[in-house]
Amino acid sequence: MLTYSFENIGSESMYEYLYQCIKTDILQKKLKPDEKLPSKRVFAKNLGISIITIENAYAQLAAEGYIYTLPKRGYFVSNLEKQMIHPSSERSQEDRRSIKEPVYYADFVRNSVAPDTFPFSVWTKLLRDVTDTENELSLLSDTSVGGVMKLRQAIAKHLYQFRGMSVDPEQIIVGAGTQYLYSIIIQLLGRNCLYAVENPGYTRLTEIYESNDVNCCHIPMDAFGVMPEFLKSSGADILHITPSHHFPTGIVMPVSRRYELLSWAAKQNERYIIEDDYDCEFRLFGKPIPALQSIDVMKKVIYINTFSKTLAPTFRISYMVLPKHLVDRFYKMLGFYSCTVSSFEQFTLERFITEGYFEKHINRMRTYYRKQRDVILKAIHQSSLNPYVTIQEEDSGLHFLMKVNTDVEDTKLITAAKNAGIRISCVSQYYHDKQDGGIHMIIINYSGLEPDKIETAIQRLSECIVDVILRGN
Amino acid sequence: MLTYSFENIGSESMYEYLYQCIKTDILQKKLKPDEKLPSKRVFAKNLGISIITIENAYAQLAAEGYIYTLPKRGYFVSNLEKQMIHPSSERSQEDRRSIKEPVYYADFVRNSVAPDTFPFSVWTKLLRDVTDTENELSLLSDTSVGGVMKLRQAIAKHLYQFRGMSVDPEQIIVGAGTQYLYSIIIQLLGRNCLYAVENPGYTRLTEIYESNDVNCCHIPMDAFGVMPEFLKSSGADILHITPSHHFPTGIVMPVSRRYELLSWAAKQNERYIIEDDYDCEFRLFGKPIPALQSIDVMKKVIYINTFSKTLAPTFRISYMVLPKHLVDRFYKMLGFYSCTVSSFEQFTLERFITEGYFEKHINRMRTYYRKQRDVILKAIHQSSLNPYVTIQEEDSGLHFLMKVNTDVEDTKLITAAKNAGIRISCVSQYYHDKQDGGIHMIIINYSGLEPDKIETAIQRLSECIVDVILRGN
Repeated sequence: MLTYSFENIGSESMYEYLYQCIKTDILQKKLKPDEKLPSKRVFAKNLGISIITIENAYAQLAAEGYIYTLPKRGYFVSNLEKQMIHPSSERSQEDRRSIKEPVYYADFVRNSVAPDTFPFSVWTKLLRDVTDTENELSLLSDTSVGGVMKLRQAIAKHLYQFRGMSVDPEQIIVGAGTQYLYSIIIQLLGRNCLYAVENPGYTRLTEIYESNDVNCCHIPMDAFGVMPEFLKSSGADILHITPSHHFPTGIVMPVSRRYELLSWAAKQNERYIIEDDYDCEFRLFGKPIPALQSIDVMKKVIYINTFSKTLAPTFRISYMVLPKHLVDRFYKMLGFYSCTVSSFEQFTLERFITEGYFEKHINRMRTYYRKQRDVILKAIHQSSLNPYVTIQEEDSGLHFLMKVNTDVEDTKLITAAKNAGIRISCVSQYYHDKQDGGIHMIIINYSGLEPDKIETAIQRLSECIVDVILRGN
Repeated sequence: MLTYSFENIGSESMYEYLYQCIKTDILQKKLKPDEKLPSKRVFAKNLGISIITIENAYAQLAAEGYIYTLPKRGYFVSNLEKQMIHPSSERSQEDRRSIKEPVYYADFVRNSVAPDTFPFSVWTKLLRDVTDTENELSLLSDTSVGGVMKLRQAIAKHLYQFRGMSVDPEQIIVGAGTQYLYSIIIQLLGRNCLYAVENPGYTRLTEIYESNDVNCCHIPMDAFGVMPEFLKSSGADILHITPSHHFPTGIVMPVSRRYELLSWAAKQNERYIIEDDYDCEFRLFGKPIPALQSIDVMKKVIYINTFSKTLAPTFRISYMVLPKHLVDRFYKMLGFYSCTVSSFEQFTLERFITEGYFEKHINRMRTYYRKQRDVILKAIHQSSLNPYVTIQEEDSGLHFLMKVNTDVEDTKLITAAKNAGIRISCVSQYYHDKQDGGIHMIIINYSGLEPDKIETAIQRLSECIVDVILRGN
């Protein structure tokens, strides 16, 4: 008769311990396939424990398939022999290559945000208010795929006041980041469409489209944005652009080009324009440029924006504004999805906007960034680099361009900076075909640079760039 | 000379008002294409305002492309004529069809959670602690696509203690909901693979795969789970299953079938099993069933689980555990993505787990659900429905099955319940081909039912179902 000692039971319950003992014996073949196990009553008596304990252990083993029952005959050991597999030695376990980034003194590439600029205390207070006063059911219940209605109303109001856009809250779809929303747009408009992106432009955008198995073409730009003749001949269905502030060139698309592109879209039913308004809030001079969406009478524009830029990159809250007929299609095709942003954060953001903190925050950030830019520009002007560079597109959004008069290749400029502990990128890197056409434009993204590092950072950058220029390689 | 009155200026700034006046005149053709605008100095004198105001208005108009500059010659009106488009009357503006759901007294279908069970005060306290003590930079900086490392460590520890899984935190990828993670898995394993799902099963899963343009096949089930012979002949590459607790039948896959499926996966390099462990925490009897992942020596299982079930549906925090060689592939192919869950919530959840609140919460919920189930079962036993039904699979996770002895079609049962204000679903609805094979199984999902509604809900349900059975249609 099967017997176990309960001396080494430790902190487990009796039934867990017994379950473990029997399972081990089955796996180690001490109990053979189809061998009958003792009846519960006899086993209990033999072990000096209660029948309930035996029952629970047997039930667990049966639930997991280690034993099976035959009605009125009892419990038997399952036959696992045939299915057990063992790892072959051929396939060795690889270790993940850890991606080591060099440590930079200053980073003019990465998008981030200065920690002391975020109103932590306001945000936490609002979140506490939300959990105190918001209907708990609406906080915990599954929300519509479009997002919390209150937040969408607040966004609609904000878009009206700040961007002159008349938008029905129903048209707004909230999602966890623009990258996520792109994948939703692909599902909505079709994976077989040809998507056109700006060249140069966000290279990550191409990666996202390709990773979603979408064909992507790259439209060259002139001084006004993507060139309509290339767009037309590309055969593209969907055009993805950043008209308010092109990355990386900083071009603001003039209204004439906007109308040309809208007119292109209007010519075919399934043509659409994705307007990526990623940093419209940070135009440092004048009024914000009106959105393409606001002059789109043919309902061809999907407007997309994010709070990751204005609040902090770790807030994964973005939204898109669909033309009304696409809202219909969205709910019919994709209404089964859940919203990807937690209600807690949606309700908190709603209050942050409605109670005026968002506007205040943007204004404060705009002042902060303007000052940041001015300090950097001044440092450049006073540096040894000054005679070799021209500053461009400095009025808008978190980066400007520094054109370097040199024949030295961009890659050498980047390497020199890297060796001096400074991370920079050049416009040439944002071309799909990575061309280095003889014009050398360093992108100075100052969104995440600590103010007290500016002087040293620019000094180091100047020295190494001037050194490369003078050495001529 | 162009002139404007500043009488109706309202709350706008001077320059904004002037900008608006000129823009309107351009759009209304009062200013013609290529017409020269007054010089700044003369215009300022004429209007009696400062040159700076004129400069700002002109700069804004130029930035938006309404006017253009010729060096040393001045500002001119742009030619917008060619590009302007007007909506044709053919394309009428549709209004979004609002999806009206009937209001139910009780809902045995929807997944939700009783609001008074969620520890709001603990959660808010932890969140406040996080913003008070966590390094602000790590809260605000962009995080790795895999998620906050602290949270992944906490999850790894939890998986070890609770599921007996030995997992390196590096293998864990955090994302905003399992639906989002499915789309990542598709990008990782390939959209051209054939994905196999359980039939019956979550119909939403098929919708998600199809919406991602993935071919999907449906594998029939026997009493142990998907049938290996059908899986083999399907030609599937990826198998997506719920072995711990199949939805909707409640089947727990026995260990022998698990080994058979693992052996199927081991036969080809690119075969994988997605183990969806969606409600393993809510096994109401005995120990949790060990995860398939924990017996997978060949590294063929992608384990996936969510906090949306254990905390609340609005928490969009899920995770998957990748085999190590897929972790490599993930970072190489998809490392450019940002994590879709905000750091605030990731850090808060980390503390919730580490400080023991998560385990406490699950235990409390398990007790709550067990009681909920018992009250419902008792109400059914005491109802007029009792002689007509058999209860099945009541030991696990938030729903059980109620087999109805009748010839009446499921759709009639559902309609009758709906008319009585009760929402139910039947197992037949979860077949890919929506078969009604003569066996009538009502799914009683009690996760969101308010306790004080149980008695009335079951009474109404009994009356209408018994009525349909007796009438025979």
